[in-house]
Amino acid sequence: VESKRSHVVVGFDPALESLPPELVASRPREDYHCSEEWQAALYRDFLRPLAEALVSEAVAVKIQVAYFEALGGPGYKLYEELVAFCRELGYLVIADVKRGDIGSTAEAYATAHLDRTGADAITVNPYFGTDGVEPFLKRARDCGKGVFVLVKTSNPSSAEIQDVVLQGGEPLYARVAALVRQWGAGTEGEYGYCSVGAVVGGTHPEQGAWLRTVLPGVPFLVPGYGTQGARAEDIARVFDQTGSGAVVNSARAILYAYRSRPECSWLDAAVAEAREMRAALWRAAGRA
Amino acid sequence: VESKRSHVVVGFDPALESLPPELVASRPREDYHCSEEWQAALYRDFLRPLAEALVSEAVAVKIQVAYFEALGGPGYKLYEELVAFCRELGYLVIADVKRGDIGSTAEAYATAHLDRTGADAITVNPYFGTDGVEPFLKRARDCGKGVFVLVKTSNPSSAEIQDVVLQGGEPLYARVAALVRQWGAGTEGEYGYCSVGAVVGGTHPEQGAWLRTVLPGVPFLVPGYGTQGARAEDIARVFDQTGSGAVVNSARAILYAYRSRPECSWLDAAVAEAREMRAALWRAAGRA
Repeated sequence: VESKRSHVVVGFDPALESLPPELVASRPREDYHCSEEWQAALYRDFLRPLAEALVSEAVAVKIQVAYFEALGGPGYKLYEELVAFCRELGYLVIADVKRGDIGSTAEAYATAHLDRTGADAITVNPYFGTDGVEPFLKRARDCGKGVFVLVKTSNPSSAEIQDVVLQGGEPLYARVAALVRQWGAGTEGEYGYCSVGAVVGGTHPEQGAWLRTVLPGVPFLVPGYGTQGARAEDIARVFDQTGSGAVVNSARAILYAYRSRPECSWLDAAVAEAREMRAALWRAAGRA
Repeated sequence: VESKRSHVVVGFDPALESLPPELVASRPREDYHCSEEWQAALYRDFLRPLAEALVSEAVAVKIQVAYFEALGGPGYKLYEELVAFCRELGYLVIADVKRGDIGSTAEAYATAHLDRTGADAITVNPYFGTDGVEPFLKRARDCGKGVFVLVKTSNPSSAEIQDVVLQGGEPLYARVAALVRQWGAGTEGEYGYCSVGAVVGGTHPEQGAWLRTVLPGVPFLVPGYGTQGARAEDIARVFDQTGSGAVVNSARAILYAYRSRPECSWLDAAVAEAREMRAALWRAAGRA
């Protein structure tokens, strides 16, 4: 954030039906053994130039593995390739996998998504409690990896479980937040922030502001900007007093910006969108 | 369960260090381009004969995708191959992926793990609430797929979040259980059971028995048998009055049974272990 002067995370959530038509037209499908290989090749054509073009606007790339798993083996291979490619470009790479399981299985997931691919950070689901996140925490303590734990997600139904009121009167996400703070203790770095962070949906500005006050030193990954509806002014209060402490993800609004900017190429449209988002967040964080 | 007279699910959780030494010795590593390809070939050598040998003992195979993701592209390809292979043998196949995300991403996961691979059922995490599980529920309603929602997991830390006491005095997992019942309504089949089930750890017999009483018509997937410590007598009360309503998973205790049965081949050891488990569960369910 400090060196790039940006809070922007670009989300790689590719969808065939949203790719620029000229890109799709440039790759004849019949040249491929199967549709998944063709689609993976298209995703590669789309995401590699995007990664190159956005490097001075975005601090991190968040790769949503679901869209790659949906292409089977060829997609999974591309996911791993993109982690390495984006790291070489100087991004921090967040493997958005939201895994959660018992300890022995979580260890296999940590091997898959942190050790093997070399991703800098991972998103994890807290439902299993401490032993289910410990393999990820170990990589935070020992290898400087980052772990973002789901606390309050951006989707409409998030309240059904996350906002359930506990005996003491607080919502469940407050209990999860307390665990996150405990899990990160001792991993504070140069700026006072821990290696264990929280996913806090930008679509819930009040809860985000409250979580900021109770979780000093916990970095936030804020999804929901752009297509999901959160604006810079909504999420101003997820930043700390120095205008730091959070990075904000936008996927579809950047990736498919060509649809609202017909005057630009799809690549220029994405860069323009990311640049506007960067400036808006920088102002909202009180930095400009 | 009725046609095979078995409640046994065999869990495919392969681990290189636990494979039978003679199997590992039979595949020279230097024949392979990379270590992951070699390891995937070994897992194939191990799991395909196991699947063939266990077909009259087990009703379903639960494939734990984490151990395949840990091998990258070659592992992911093998995971998909094994789903198809086990289905051809007549097993129900449970893709144990425990995914959970916002709706659009959950749709991609449903495509990946139900539509593409053809798995019969999937495990999902409830933390996102209804819109995060809806893509899976849609496949339950429209395509006869099964969805097992994490309710009370088998691991030691599960209480940290799942047992948190709510304002009304009930634990969080009871709230999740109520959602599961609601999500499955209308999908009841011939025996009165829904297509939306619950994961209920066999290591928590009291909670399992209580969940059985409040969730009539909800099928249970019960992990934790064997290596994790649950025995047949512990979990007798997860079955309904007809001795049905639950299937029970064992992975390591079956897969690596050769270690406690030195008189057998590794394959015979696994079959013997599964057969004992099947008989013990059948008795515990009041069927024998």
